[in-house]
This record gives sequence, C-alpha cells and structure tokens, in this order.
Amino acid sequence: MSDIAIESATGWLSDDELETTRERMPILYVEAIPVRVDEHGEVTHVGLLLRIDPEGTVSRSFVSGRVMHHEQLRAALLRHLEKDLGPVALPRIPVSTQPFTVAEYFPTPGVTPFHDPRQHAVSLVYVVPVSGDCRPRQDALDLVWFTPGEAASASVLDEMQGGRGALLRQALAHVGAAT
Amino acid sequence: MSDIAIESATGWLSDDELETTRERMPILYVEAIPVRVDEHGEVTHVGLLLRIDPEGTVSRSFVSGRVMHHEQLRAALLRHLEKDLGPVALPRIPVSTQPFTVAEYFPTPGVTPFHDPRQHAVSLVYVVPVSGDCRPRQDALDLVWFTPGEAASASVLDEMQGGRGALLRQALAHVGAAT
Amino acid sequence: MSDIAIESATGWLSDDELETTRERMPILYVEAIPVRVDEHGEVTHVGLLLRIDPEGTVSRSFVSGRVMHHEQLRAALLRHLEKDLGPVALPRIPVSTQPFTVAEYFPTPGVTPFHDPRQHAVSLVYVVPVSGDCRPRQDALDLVWFTPGEAASASVLDEMQGGRGALLRQALAHVGAAT
Amino acid sequence: MSDIAIESATGWLSDDELETTRERMPILYVEAIPVRVDEHGEVTHVGLLLRIDPEGTVSRSFVSGRVMHHEQLRAALLRHLEKDLGPVALPRIPVSTQPFTVAEYFPTPGVTPFHDPRQHAVSLVYVVPVSGDCRPRQDALDLVWFTPGEAASASVLDEMQGGRGALLRQALAHVGAAT
Repeated sequence: MSDIAIESATGWLSDDELETTRERMPILYVEAIPVRVDEHGEVTHVGLLLRIDPEGTVSRSFVSGRVMHHEQLRAALLRHLEKDLGPVALPRIPVSTQPFTVAEYFPTPGVTPFHDPRQHAVSLVYVVPVSGDCRPRQDALDLVWFTPGEAASASVLDEMQGGRGALLRQALAHVGAAT
Repeated sequence: MSDIAIESATGWLSDDELETTRERMPILYVEAIPVRVDEHGEVTHVGLLLRIDPEGTVSRSFVSGRVMHHEQLRAALLRHLEKDLGPVALPRIPVSTQPFTVAEYFPTPGVTPFHDPRQHAVSLVYVVPVSGDCRPRQDALDLVWFTPGEAASASVLDEMQGGRGALLRQALAHVGAAT
Repeated sequence: MSDIAIESATGWLSDDELETTRERMPILYVEAIPVRVDEHGEVTHVGLLLRIDPEGTVSRSFVSGRVMHHEQLRAALLRHLEKDLGPVALPRIPVSTQPFTVAEYFPTPGVTPFHDPRQHAVSLVYVVPVSGDCRPRQDALDLVWFTPGEAASASVLDEMQGGRGALLRQALAHVGAAT
Repeated sequence: MSDIAIESATGWLSDDELETTRERMPILYVEAIPVRVDEHGEVTHVGLLLRIDPEGTVSRSFVSGRVMHHEQLRAALLRHLEKDLGPVALPRIPVSTQPFTVAEYFPTPGVTPFHDPRQHAVSLVYVVPVSGDCRPRQDALDLVWFTPGEAASASVLDEMQGGRGALLRQALAHVGAAT
C-alpha cells in the first residue's frame, strides 16, 4: 500500500494527520486483483504488480489504496485501478460492492494472516477483469500476467508480502481456478 | 422456462424421457438477469424478456434454461444467453460460478416463493452485464430495458410469473440498486 | 449509530479527535441484523432495536458500531452484539467475515441510499442468528421481533432511518425470506 | 457420494431408473463441510468423514447426498447431516441457501477439478457449524476433527478423492482460516 505517501501529499489529509489517524483508527482500503477472462468468464491470467526496491528485492502486489472521505467504494476502486494500470485498462468493476473477502492487515504480525507494519488497514477485496491495455504508470512498477497455476506456485507466492500470498490463494479459490 | 420444448426436441432427452425425469428428480437450471452497467459497475438498466401469449397476456422473464448432461455451468449460461439475446450481446459471465441466489421452483405453489407447474427446478441465478447489441431471436420475445426504479415498480413486477418478481427484487438488492 | 458518544468517551479517541477524524476519513462500522432461525436455518424472526427520542419519535435500527484500532471484525461484532443485546443473547457470528452487503452512509443525502448526517461511515453488514435471551441494556432501547413479512411492511420500514429500511429489505432478500 | 446406493434403494428412483437418469442429466447434490467454531465464529476444527474400503485404502470426505424430488435444499442438507453425523450433531444450517461454491463433478476426469466416475453431479457446497455430538451412523465411517492447518496438510488432502482436496482448500479460504 505504498500509494499512501502520494495520496497524502495531494489528498485529504496531511502527512502528519494521516500518521496520527493511523495510530487511532482502522484505515479503510479497497484492493483489486486484476484478471484476464475468456468468453466463459473463466480466469485465464492473474495480473500482479511488480516492484523492485533499491536493494533489488522483488515484490509483487495487487492494486490497492485508501478510500477517501466522501468517496464511494466504486469510485475508489476505479481511481486506484487507473492509477496503477493506466487509463485504458478497461476494468470491469463488479456489479455488487460485496467484496469476496475482507483482509484485516494488523500492525502486529500474527494477529491475522495479514500484516502492514504502518497501520491497521481493513481491505475490501475484489477480483476485477480488465480487458484493455495495462500500462503501470509509476516508475518502479510493472504488471506481469500469470496463469492461475503459475500464480499459485511457491516462487510467486513467496514474492508477495504482508500475507498477500494467502489473499491470492483465496482469490483463486473464489474463482474456482484449477491450481 | 418455456425453452424446454425446444431443448428437449433437439437435445439430450426425448420429450417422454424428460417428462418422466421431471416427475422423479429436481431439474438443474441456470438463470441470468441481463443488466447494463456504467464504468463504475453500477447497474443502470435491467433487461427483461417480453412474451405475449396467444390470449394477449404479457409476461416478462429472465434468460434461463436447463443445464445439459456433461455441460459446464459457464457453458450453459453462455448458451442460453446467446439463445435469448442473440450472438452479439457480449455477455460478461461472472468470474465466479457462485450464484448470488438459488431459486427453488416447486410444482406445488406456496412451498417456496417460486413456482413452476411443470416441474421441480433448482435454478442458479446470476446477474450478467451485457455490453453488446441484444436481438432476441425467438418470435414472441422482445427485450426491454428498465431502470432499477422502473424494474422494481408494481406494474413490472406483476408481469413476472412463478415468483420471478421476488427474484428480481433479490437481484436489485444484491447489486445495491436504489429502488 | 448513536453508540458513538458512549464509545468515544471510553475508547480510543477523544470526542474532539473523533470529530476531526470524521471530517477527514470514512469511518469503519460493523452492523448486525439479529434473527431467529428454525432448525433448517430459515429465518423466522428479525430483531429490531427500538428507540424513542425525547419528542416521542419511534425509530428502529440494527446492532451497529465502530471498529476500533487493532480490533478484529469478529471481535467488534461480538462486542456490539453484547452491548446492544446483553450478555446471554448467544449470537452466532458467521463463519466468514465476508459481509452480505456493504452500506455506504454519506453525510450528504442522496449520494447513496444510506445517510448519516454526522459522518461518512462504511458499514460491513451481517445477518446474525441469536439463540439466547436478548436484554437490551441501554435505557431507551427495546428489541422487538418481527416475522419477515411484518419486517417488510411499510409501517416498520418507515420507522427506520438513514436508509436502513433498504438495508433490511436487502437482508430479507439475502436470506430468501418470503415477504 | 457413496450414499447413492442406499438412497436409491429406499428412495424416489429405482436403481435402474437412477442409472438411466445419470446418463442423461446432471444430478443435483448438496455438500456440507462440518466445522467447529469458537464464540467469534472462527473455525477451530474441520470435520472429515473417514472411510476404509475392503483393500484398506483410507479416504476422507464431506457430508453429501442427492436432493430429492420435491425436497428443499435446507431439508436435503439437514437430512444428509443427520444421516452422516447422527441425530444430536446440532448442525446450524446457514441463513442463506447461497452456496459458497458450486462443485461440478464430471464423469470425465480433467474437465473441471472435480471428478465422479459414476455421473455428472452439480454440488452446492456449504460450511456448516455443528455444536453437538457427532456419531457417524454407517459402519465404515468415522468423523475426525482437524485444525485448519492440519486439514490443509498434504497428508490429509491426499486422502480426499474426486477433487475434494481442492474443495477443502476453497472452504478454508472462504472462512479465512490461516493455513
């Protein structure tokens, strides 16, 4: 959820205010797992964002970010999808805002399968088919497509942080992907 | 579910066999409620099939039909969508085959909210966005688009049979439509 | 969501801090609709909390309240159920924390079907069977059980505020109640 | 789904009729995964039925069986739970008949992750908390409780047939179990 610095600089809360709030309240997030589907709606590929930190460590994650004050969930989803996948990804936001799961990221490891050292974040998670061209817009990011089988492999899951490997397995289970 | 006569004539069971089986077993159906969505995934219109019987009675219904032997749910959904909406409707079958509800149609009225005089049918129901051009292919049928508010009006609900008015309300509740 | 005053007095945020935060961030809530079920799991009754304000206006609502910092959703649900229904209600928290719907309460009326003049609240909503004895513990509250048909009647729905009538209808649709 | 022989002997279809129908139609099943939960609704144990065939091969499975003609899903679930777990298991049938997943068992291996050599079965799958005493009633069966972590281990999953290991993983993902 590294978008925070950018958002807080331009957004509703100053950095200081965000820091203070994070120590007091759970922060609401939306998270989207981009997928490619065939005409039967079957997931053929899962898209994972790639980031390489200055030390050269590879990590993979989903589209995610905070829900702003007075922003609807659908608008937040669309905003973060555009931010991470570019303007022509053509995401298909689900018809229902019921998330397929809720991931509770705790600052203390081990409370739940999900961990975020900066905050207590509660994330509504969606699988979102995208049919257009994905162009990650932030320098350090690329988007890589994996088959469900590849995505469920240990080598990929190990590159996901904060429990997102478990979340990816939940998503694959939800769509009935053979892994 | 008037597609049965057609299906049984061309399909896996003879008419006689289907009649016999219907007296012995629940018959598995899929049902799709076609919708138009905006870029936020919000439902703007619901599509209802229109039929006028020889006496001039108007009835409205969804896309529906049997699941055949050795046919997957996704394939059955796509087949019935093409049958009822034509080849260029561009339906977006959901990424998960989990239905948003299961409608149990009983031959005896009053057992459940759903009634089918011909059989005990168990129907897995999905909301399916369609983005293309819908051309109902069977003579007596037209497809009419309603806003969620119009679809939830008494005048429309009263034209739905077998409890499908209740099913439509369930679908609108599922997608969070303001009605 | 009148529990706020009480919570903030004893809880993680001072009144002032909560006020400030409410102007900046969506606030995360859980909401529970208590039900009685028969041995088939079918909902026989829906429990609505009753409140009469100083002017004598009757309003009905669900169990609800904020999720605290470093509190799990399941714990928040249980805490609010005990607060509103007493210690021997024996609620059965669902096996999955996937809510059946997410209600977005906006301070501006009309943005969504849900309205809360004090804040932007995002509420994860659950249907929770309770099998024990419910004893609302706060003076102005009683709990009244309605059949699904009674709960869906205009006279009851009209006594629900902030769009909770629509939420109740969604819950009844979700459990397949004949109304 | 070895309950078929018994059911067909006492039930709505003769053995011959059932055989004929199985070659023509998908057969509707319900499947229940029994769990123990704590007061927060968190799954602490998963119950798997144990069977040892004459050759000494161990296999593990869920509660499952056909839906009969004119039988509601809730009634079918309760009937099969009583048949497999005994009369005092005190199962808590879910408030909604929406299954958390639909498993499509095909007679041809590899079409879906699920395989049943005898038939095309479509199974609506539920996680069902049981709070009472489970006494499997058929000679060859025992019920063994596993923690989610144990249930997800290769040694247990390998003893499940027809793809039920994948189904168990889907259930654990649905309830958010740390595995």
